[in-house]
Amino acid sequence: MIDLIDRNTADALRFLAMSAMTAMTASLLVFAFRQEGTSFSDRRTGFLMTASAWVVVCVFGALPLLGGSGEVSFTDAMFESVSALTTTGSTVLSGLDDMPRGILLWRSLLQWLGGVGIIAMAMSFLPTLRVGGMQLFLSESSDISGKPFAKVSQIVRSILVVYLGLTLACAVGLMLAGMPTFDAVNHAMTTIATGGLSTKDASIGYYRSVPIEVVTEIFMVMGALPLASYAIFIAHRGKRPFIDEQIKAFIFVLLAAIGLSTTWNVMQGMEPPTALRLSAFNVTSVLTDTGFATTDFSAWGSFAVGLFFLLYLIGGCAGSTAGAIKIFRWQVLFLSVRRSLQLMIYPNAVARVRYQGNPLSDDVINNVRNFFFLYILTLLVLSLGVMATGVDFLSATTSIAQGMANAGPGLGPLVGPATTFAAIPDTAKWLVMAAMLLGRLELLTVYVMLMPAFWSR
Amino acid sequence: MIDLIDRNTADALRFLAMSAMTAMTASLLVFAFRQEGTSFSDRRTGFLMTASAWVVVCVFGALPLLGGSGEVSFTDAMFESVSALTTTGSTVLSGLDDMPRGILLWRSLLQWLGGVGIIAMAMSFLPTLRVGGMQLFLSESSDISGKPFAKVSQIVRSILVVYLGLTLACAVGLMLAGMPTFDAVNHAMTTIATGGLSTKDASIGYYRSVPIEVVTEIFMVMGALPLASYAIFIAHRGKRPFIDEQIKAFIFVLLAAIGLSTTWNVMQGMEPPTALRLSAFNVTSVLTDTGFATTDFSAWGSFAVGLFFLLYLIGGCAGSTAGAIKIFRWQVLFLSVRRSLQLMIYPNAVARVRYQGNPLSDDVINNVRNFFFLYILTLLVLSLGVMATGVDFLSATTSIAQGMANAGPGLGPLVGPATTFAAIPDTAKWLVMAAMLLGRLELLTVYVMLMPAFWSR
Repeated sequence: MIDLIDRNTADALRFLAMSAMTAMTASLLVFAFRQEGTSFSDRRTGFLMTASAWVVVCVFGALPLLGGSGEVSFTDAMFESVSALTTTGSTVLSGLDDMPRGILLWRSLLQWLGGVGIIAMAMSFLPTLRVGGMQLFLSESSDISGKPFAKVSQIVRSILVVYLGLTLACAVGLMLAGMPTFDAVNHAMTTIATGGLSTKDASIGYYRSVPIEVVTEIFMVMGALPLASYAIFIAHRGKRPFIDEQIKAFIFVLLAAIGLSTTWNVMQGMEPPTALRLSAFNVTSVLTDTGFATTDFSAWGSFAVGLFFLLYLIGGCAGSTAGAIKIFRWQVLFLSVRRSLQLMIYPNAVARVRYQGNPLSDDVINNVRNFFFLYILTLLVLSLGVMATGVDFLSATTSIAQGMANAGPGLGPLVGPATTFAAIPDTAKWLVMAAMLLGRLELLTVYVMLMPAFWSR
Repeated sequence: MIDLIDRNTADALRFLAMSAMTAMTASLLVFAFRQEGTSFSDRRTGFLMTASAWVVVCVFGALPLLGGSGEVSFTDAMFESVSALTTTGSTVLSGLDDMPRGILLWRSLLQWLGGVGIIAMAMSFLPTLRVGGMQLFLSESSDISGKPFAKVSQIVRSILVVYLGLTLACAVGLMLAGMPTFDAVNHAMTTIATGGLSTKDASIGYYRSVPIEVVTEIFMVMGALPLASYAIFIAHRGKRPFIDEQIKAFIFVLLAAIGLSTTWNVMQGMEPPTALRLSAFNVTSVLTDTGFATTDFSAWGSFAVGLFFLLYLIGGCAGSTAGAIKIFRWQVLFLSVRRSLQLMIYPNAVARVRYQGNPLSDDVINNVRNFFFLYILTLLVLSLGVMATGVDFLSATTSIAQGMANAGPGLGPLVGPATTFAAIPDTAKWLVMAAMLLGRLELLTVYVMLMPAFWSR
């Protein structure tokens, strides 16, 4: 793989790749240490470390992009780095097809490493700090190891094995489907990370190949499923069912959205097989927050735009590299609304809510509702900020919605799948970066630092 | 006032006006009866009666519009009636300036009566049924009468006196500012109801008069304040402060939004006095969900569009005729988010939340969070429905946002303040009507009927 890196930036890149990996590994170790220590005697350090680790790594990631050609501004380099590391996949770069391979591999590698960081954070750090209802997934740690209190290092190792295995399988799959080796390695890394950075301006659409699209679809879905589920499945040698309530709901939403999109496109006069092929790929890409495209789906008309906007808000499963509000939170919200409506009819009824076989605590429900409120509020405020730079309503709201979901392309005249984010003002780019990081850090990790109590004593 | 009604529709109108008023009065009496009865032994009947009373009255309200000219379709007549009675103020009619005065007065009267129905519902019915946190306002009943358990009829009477008084004051104010008597009577009714139906196609912009605008601004704000606050203030002869936390926040949001809008318009090259005059009127109109306009503010550019969209979601005070999520719910959401963030830092801290001097119960907080989730979900789903009829993203989302807020004009090419809702397909009109009624019935009153448990036994 070394011979893939050419041009004079190769050495610098390798050096920086090592630094970034070291930084990321170091922060992961710190999380691990912290959790096995005295049960979070200082939660505040935890929040601060997580958030600042991300920012530092993003700055590191931007450096190589600045180095080479000199055409990339600091803002654009940061945008590309934040987008890669948060597994968003939005880009400000065009002319990818002729770009030095080192730059392309660097972007893919950042995205793949970002995916590792996210999974480790989602598995180990967020649940114990009760961020946005993630405490639901605390029990998974013991499921993987079979022991009541598993060590974080063990869990992270199992997950890493799964992540690496999926990536290899994806690369092999893409090669068998006819993709050149260099492209396959890059796309495998950005597919499993549900990232969406491509080595081609036209994204997966470049290959015009059904087999490549199908392989990508399968691995985008696999990347949007909880990685712990694979680990548990393997640890119990397939004796425990792989598909749980979250995965079931995700598959349902995916198929429903593909159905709606296909129907709409057929009604608009598209040939049914084309409509199905394009819908299957692009809906999967948006719902899993990957961000590849095989066509400019922002030109599919009003209903498709609305549908994709909704998919940006839904997202994939918790415990994967997919972003947005996530399937489990929508499930918790629906379950708790149903309970509240029942209580309006029978105020004295005892209506328990169960999810994944366990009763849902008020604590989880409250955290999820809080998360939803903050998600919508953030979306509204950041979109308004982007509009203040002169960007139109649709481009602004979808830039932020896709950013918070870590999806990839926006919708609208300035930021659709057929173009890049280069057309929006620098201030707007920084707001989209903020959206990506906020989404990735599950909002609360950042907002908790805005409280005066966080800094007192 | 009788001589204001001319043409041959006069008798039919008067008859129907009486019927509608009878129907409305009858349903109010039923609410009253129910509440003084055996403490809601059957809540389900209450929900069903409220929702069906609104639908029935809307059908009644549509009849006179069908009768006269014959040019108005059933859908358009229903749209106009629902818009009037829910105090929304969206219209599909143009050529208002030359329309029979009977029709104009009918629309205004429907809107004014709709306002009465809303206040009665908000004061008596919603709190006891714990709809969307409205139980916060249960205590107000006793504040008005000074007795622990006031009779609903007494409360409704106090409120009606305030409502009538404000309407008269507004009419006199408008006449003093130079508005013709017929117009003043109509606009007074639709201003206090924060409705926004006008007798002119150009709305208040027709008069090109600063005094008329200022008077309208004042009474739009007064109509968006809790009517109970006036009643309490009068009952205690001014010994209790009028301005509470909700009113304070409302005024703050109003001034901040006017400031932002003025700044944006000046930055876009508008003369500062013009920017202030136009911003003051149109921001007040949108935030209070009235819906008058003095210019096509949808043409003010991206930031203004985003700001107005946000104002549609905020709305006025609970216990007024203003709609949307309402100020108190935003306050409760912010207070509870702050508490949750504090608990993330100090998990064992006891963080109590107080609002209006009283501790906020978990029950209220949960209801408000539920309401917020359902509000956003309804907005997303209905907007998607409107987009399925081919309406663009901006027109669709703002049609539904303004409908749910009972505001008036939308934003976007098809439904801006400079035009009517006549341009959108009939299916979209019905979806906007659904939005108006759902907003007015505070969502939960309707959604509770979707539960199977509602219809069992």
